[in-house]
Amino acid sequence: MRVEIWSDIACPWCYIGKARFEKGLAAFAHRDEVEVVHRSFELDPGRAKSDTGPVLEMLASKYGRTLDEARAMEEHVASNARSEGLGYLTEGRDHGNTFDIHRLLHFARERGLQSELLDVAYRANFAEERSVFTPETLLALGVEAGLDEAEVRAVLADEDAYADAVRADEREAAELGANGVPFFVLDRRYGVSGGQPAEVFTQALEQAWQGRALQPVTGDAAAPACDVDGNNC
Amino acid sequence: MRVEIWSDIACPWCYIGKARFEKGLAAFAHRDEVEVVHRSFELDPGRAKSDTGPVLEMLASKYGRTLDEARAMEEHVASNARSEGLGYLTEGRDHGNTFDIHRLLHFARERGLQSELLDVAYRANFAEERSVFTPETLLALGVEAGLDEAEVRAVLADEDAYADAVRADEREAAELGANGVPFFVLDRRYGVSGGQPAEVFTQALEQAWQGRALQPVTGDAAAPACDVDGNNC
Repeated sequence: MRVEIWSDIACPWCYIGKARFEKGLAAFAHRDEVEVVHRSFELDPGRAKSDTGPVLEMLASKYGRTLDEARAMEEHVASNARSEGLGYLTEGRDHGNTFDIHRLLHFARERGLQSELLDVAYRANFAEERSVFTPETLLALGVEAGLDEAEVRAVLADEDAYADAVRADEREAAELGANGVPFFVLDRRYGVSGGQPAEVFTQALEQAWQGRALQPVTGDAAAPACDVDGNNC
Repeated sequence: MRVEIWSDIACPWCYIGKARFEKGLAAFAHRDEVEVVHRSFELDPGRAKSDTGPVLEMLASKYGRTLDEARAMEEHVASNARSEGLGYLTEGRDHGNTFDIHRLLHFARERGLQSELLDVAYRANFAEERSVFTPETLLALGVEAGLDEAEVRAVLADEDAYADAVRADEREAAELGANGVPFFVLDRRYGVSGGQPAEVFTQALEQAWQGRALQPVTGDAAAPACDVDGNNC
């Protein structure tokens, strides 16, 4: 079975949702037969790459709140994160454009290290005072995730590398009806929105597992194939 | 959308079916949004790695036919292959154990060269007098497909490398009800068996595209998410 998770590195509920999903997955009997793929979604795709700044000020300005009120909003998210055992700074972290890290996550997927890079990047962004919006930090995160330094450097330097893959993910999210993240898709058949409790993910996995039967497509019934007992071939 | 194709390198209808599928895909309007993954299936998993030999003799012995009759069977397949523009030798090719090439195909998938390796291997097996059952040939095929020689050598030398991935594919094929190959699965929702005409694949792709709507899984409707307009985050 296959689960695709659309998320953005700048999305706290994605950070929390990944931990809750993994807890839900760990409780699922067929967990060893589940492949997880992380897909790209930018909450703020129009933001210039040079335009980074403190999250609290961004929140206060966007919602017309004081910095203290923005801090209270963040504190609510932080308490959810901490209840999952995740670190969360309510001050000192930055907001910015996430396109490059999505490109790098696609490269990491090819190397089998996508989930690792996402964990490292979430931790840097939410639990440590590290801005994940500079090539230098992205390079360091890639290496921490286990990627080859020269390869990461090459991906970051070539702004076309995996750019189409990021945009294809974003187009697919729109086609599937996702207007927020995290967004979980099970075998392209079931959708789960948001940072749900772990048990909801376990139930969704069980539901998708039950509903795995394929619909045959009408075709030439006599189409030649090689049978498992070796007939015809 | 995602298409998974279970096949075996030793299966002539898989060789022909890949070409027909690709022709059907080329006629599909949303072809650029289709991801194709090749999955492992062994028609003859019990065969010892050392047990290779001429296909014609194997066919004659299995079906109790003369070599001339076996040659006629092969000629029928060959004419189908040639009508797809594919080379096909009715003499001089070998039959053997395909586990190692499946392992290598999994590695090639990580490097984005799976389809290329499969093409090279099919051509070597069916159109050229090259036995694809020795480490030397597999190494050469990997390099021809664009893989790194040292990496291919390491995968071939470690018989555990990707072995679980091959077995997991085979288990999934059985669970999905495949008892022959090629077997095509579209978004884990529709199944197509056999080397169908290209138009059947185009129709199946269109049918699967229409049926893409996800079923929502019941959960906590108020589960927190970050919206595309930036609300909540």
